[in-house]
Amino acid sequence: MSTNKLPTQADDFPAWYVEVVKRAELAEHGPAKGSMIIKPHGYAMWELTQRALDDRFKATGHENVYFPLLIPMSLLQQEADHVEGFAPQVAVVTRGGGQELEEPLAIRPTSEAIIWSTYKRWIQSYRDLPLLYNQWGNVVRWEMRTRLFLRTSEFLWQEGHTAHATAEHAQAETLRMLEVYREVAEDVLGIPVLKGRKSPGERFPGAVETYCIEGLMRDARALQCGTSHFLGQNFGKAYDVTFLNADGATEHAWGTSWGFSTRMIGGTIMAHGDDAGLRLPPAVAPIQVAIVPIFRTDDERASVLRVAEKLRADLAATGVRVRLDDRDQHRPGYKFAEWELKGVPIRIELGPRDVAAQRVVLASRLGGDKEEVALADVAAGMAERLASVQKALYADALAYRETNTHEIGSFDAFASGVAEQGGFWIGAWCGDAACEAEISTKTKATIRFLPLEPADPGAACVHCGKPGVDVATWARAY
Amino acid sequence: MSTNKLPTQADDFPAWYVEVVKRAELAEHGPAKGSMIIKPHGYAMWELTQRALDDRFKATGHENVYFPLLIPMSLLQQEADHVEGFAPQVAVVTRGGGQELEEPLAIRPTSEAIIWSTYKRWIQSYRDLPLLYNQWGNVVRWEMRTRLFLRTSEFLWQEGHTAHATAEHAQAETLRMLEVYREVAEDVLGIPVLKGRKSPGERFPGAVETYCIEGLMRDARALQCGTSHFLGQNFGKAYDVTFLNADGATEHAWGTSWGFSTRMIGGTIMAHGDDAGLRLPPAVAPIQVAIVPIFRTDDERASVLRVAEKLRADLAATGVRVRLDDRDQHRPGYKFAEWELKGVPIRIELGPRDVAAQRVVLASRLGGDKEEVALADVAAGMAERLASVQKALYADALAYRETNTHEIGSFDAFASGVAEQGGFWIGAWCGDAACEAEISTKTKATIRFLPLEPADPGAACVHCGKPGVDVATWARAY
Repeated sequence: MSTNKLPTQADDFPAWYVEVVKRAELAEHGPAKGSMIIKPHGYAMWELTQRALDDRFKATGHENVYFPLLIPMSLLQQEADHVEGFAPQVAVVTRGGGQELEEPLAIRPTSEAIIWSTYKRWIQSYRDLPLLYNQWGNVVRWEMRTRLFLRTSEFLWQEGHTAHATAEHAQAETLRMLEVYREVAEDVLGIPVLKGRKSPGERFPGAVETYCIEGLMRDARALQCGTSHFLGQNFGKAYDVTFLNADGATEHAWGTSWGFSTRMIGGTIMAHGDDAGLRLPPAVAPIQVAIVPIFRTDDERASVLRVAEKLRADLAATGVRVRLDDRDQHRPGYKFAEWELKGVPIRIELGPRDVAAQRVVLASRLGGDKEEVALADVAAGMAERLASVQKALYADALAYRETNTHEIGSFDAFASGVAEQGGFWIGAWCGDAACEAEISTKTKATIRFLPLEPADPGAACVHCGKPGVDVATWARAY
Repeated sequence: MSTNKLPTQADDFPAWYVEVVKRAELAEHGPAKGSMIIKPHGYAMWELTQRALDDRFKATGHENVYFPLLIPMSLLQQEADHVEGFAPQVAVVTRGGGQELEEPLAIRPTSEAIIWSTYKRWIQSYRDLPLLYNQWGNVVRWEMRTRLFLRTSEFLWQEGHTAHATAEHAQAETLRMLEVYREVAEDVLGIPVLKGRKSPGERFPGAVETYCIEGLMRDARALQCGTSHFLGQNFGKAYDVTFLNADGATEHAWGTSWGFSTRMIGGTIMAHGDDAGLRLPPAVAPIQVAIVPIFRTDDERASVLRVAEKLRADLAATGVRVRLDDRDQHRPGYKFAEWELKGVPIRIELGPRDVAAQRVVLASRLGGDKEEVALADVAAGMAERLASVQKALYADALAYRETNTHEIGSFDAFASGVAEQGGFWIGAWCGDAACEAEISTKTKATIRFLPLEPADPGAACVHCGKPGVDVATWARAY
């Protein structure tokens, strides 16, 4: 671990991010351009996120499946908007087993194409519907400018793909999974998010509507945290997926897709971290409690470690993810700084005097005074303590977002405000894509979302002055 | 579900396998050559296998990581044996983001190359060792002749990659993970396996020793069920991974790697299935208990389903994976056949007379008489019942293997026996690769394994008559 100070968030947020990812040993760049190696501490965060999502997918009736990585190019090209959106980002396999391939294969940038071409075989009757399937895997989207977790050529994610007999069922599914994403983002990752609908220009290629959850990072830039797409019958038609309805008539199936990725590890870092490093919500912290023993002599070492090991076992028995840091090559001060950097929510210090007094010193990553707690009470009280850290981090991020959310008074105030302070800016929009593009050019902000249902703003567009047809929330975003 | 009879195992085992995989809705071929779509029932078996392995990896001190899918070709080529072994099977990306790549990228056929080139950065001192890492993911190895689960161009697996300060530590790790594989194969998948060491010709490219577990399928052919490799310092030297030992001297790190894949879903099918379809060990059965309600009138339907739903909830509350099959479009007989085909260990039949008598009829997938059980006792007794099915399937497979394991008397008896009956054939071997190759040409059998430690057979080689130096177990294999 480097002992140099981190760059501060205020001085250079991007440099802070790069250094935290590196020093907290979350990830690093791989040898191929845009690739990422996820290290144990980062991957463990992803595993906890996966478990939280997967449990909820299953509780809402979904099953997991696995579709191939490699997709014939011709298959990818059947839905016109979809191929137009993804073609520039595709990695192509042209050789296999020592030979040139007859037809090149795309590495999946997303799996709608291969899944809907298969659903054609799986769906005949309304009785086959809905299909509620999810897939865990990797995808590749060629990226020129990459940033660990936030934008890499390969990333890990889940992609849900469902097929339904009616538009209403598909629409309800789209919003159900958006709600699952909100719950995981807020309750697990501790990131307050707003639900909304993308403007047509920001939609997923091939979708009728794209819904999203959006969070605000501690540099006041927005991060799209998950998307859920209502596909209408677009893929049903492109891949000729039809079914006989209860009346014996043939219809095209309705679809949804939704995805949540390793990008959210980046989101968790940027939503909570401070100038000392990560601050991890306990629900996604690979180590929730670190015990640092303090001693000078061999006798002290033996007695302190005996008590510390007992405490570790007691905490582990209550389901707490606990690490006893008994490394001999580092001093306690070094260990304190390391666990602080790595965002461990609770640190326990235990020295000879603590052993004598049958107590520990407890320090929260959120700061405040250190606290002396009776040894006998530590394990029993830890779940509540962790829950309160979880709540406090969420509350902190929520307060930050509220402070950084503004109603647009005038366009000039919006333009200068979003440039100087960042944050969310809310105002009336005319619904015109050209006006949206002009605003983006002038402000470098994009519409992060519109309300779930179009809302009459009762005011003129903040930019062009034409009648407002919807309420747009703007921000500069990742 | 097709209602035609399955091909029998005795008549045509390969056809039986293909039909069972298809009708039990485990998997199907994808559009690209050699690719596989894993359907919910098959994927759920893999998830249960993953959980069993992952829990044991963590209990033995391993952490999960993720390395990139795409590897620069130059990196893959640093270990001579390794590249020679894998080059013919590599899929190559030559275009990305609409441009020809300067250096082609291999889709990983396995990750030793990228991982050891990274370990060079992660390992400086003996204090950094061991590194005990595992990765869950997909790999691609171009295959001409593919068979679902058993041999596909892309497959899912885990690959463990560890680095150690001494040969002894690496060797102990290799055998520790082999034991984990044995435990999961036997206790979870119910497949009795034998541990052994591969002959030099069958070693993993780049390994010093390859250890394996081997099982016998119900067509008396062997299946390699998992491998664990002692890499010596081969990758440490090829990728220049050195560390300062406790005495301040520089050494190359010692390595292991070990893998277990979706191939074992195929193994589970072939080790237990019968002419009626799958027989799934409860530990890996996505549905352990299927409840089939029986009724004629609407009144009967209501009262039977009320009791059935209560039973379902009671079973689920005890942790049993249970499905209440309340589909209206199928008759009970159809449902019985479907759950039998899909290998569900226990079927519960519940009709109006059962409701009146407060009992159910219980049928085991292993056959035997149907049993009447008091409704009140079903949930409490189910764990034990499932455990006894698990044991019985294992015992059945073990008896089959024992019946089909032979000492080689004469070479002719071995050659005709392995051709006609299959099975394992054990005999003295001279240790000569040329003799091994001749035997394989004559018998289509390969050495499945040698003992973990070389064993003096005290006899002449079964083929060439030269002095035996080891005991070889031969079989025709997948």
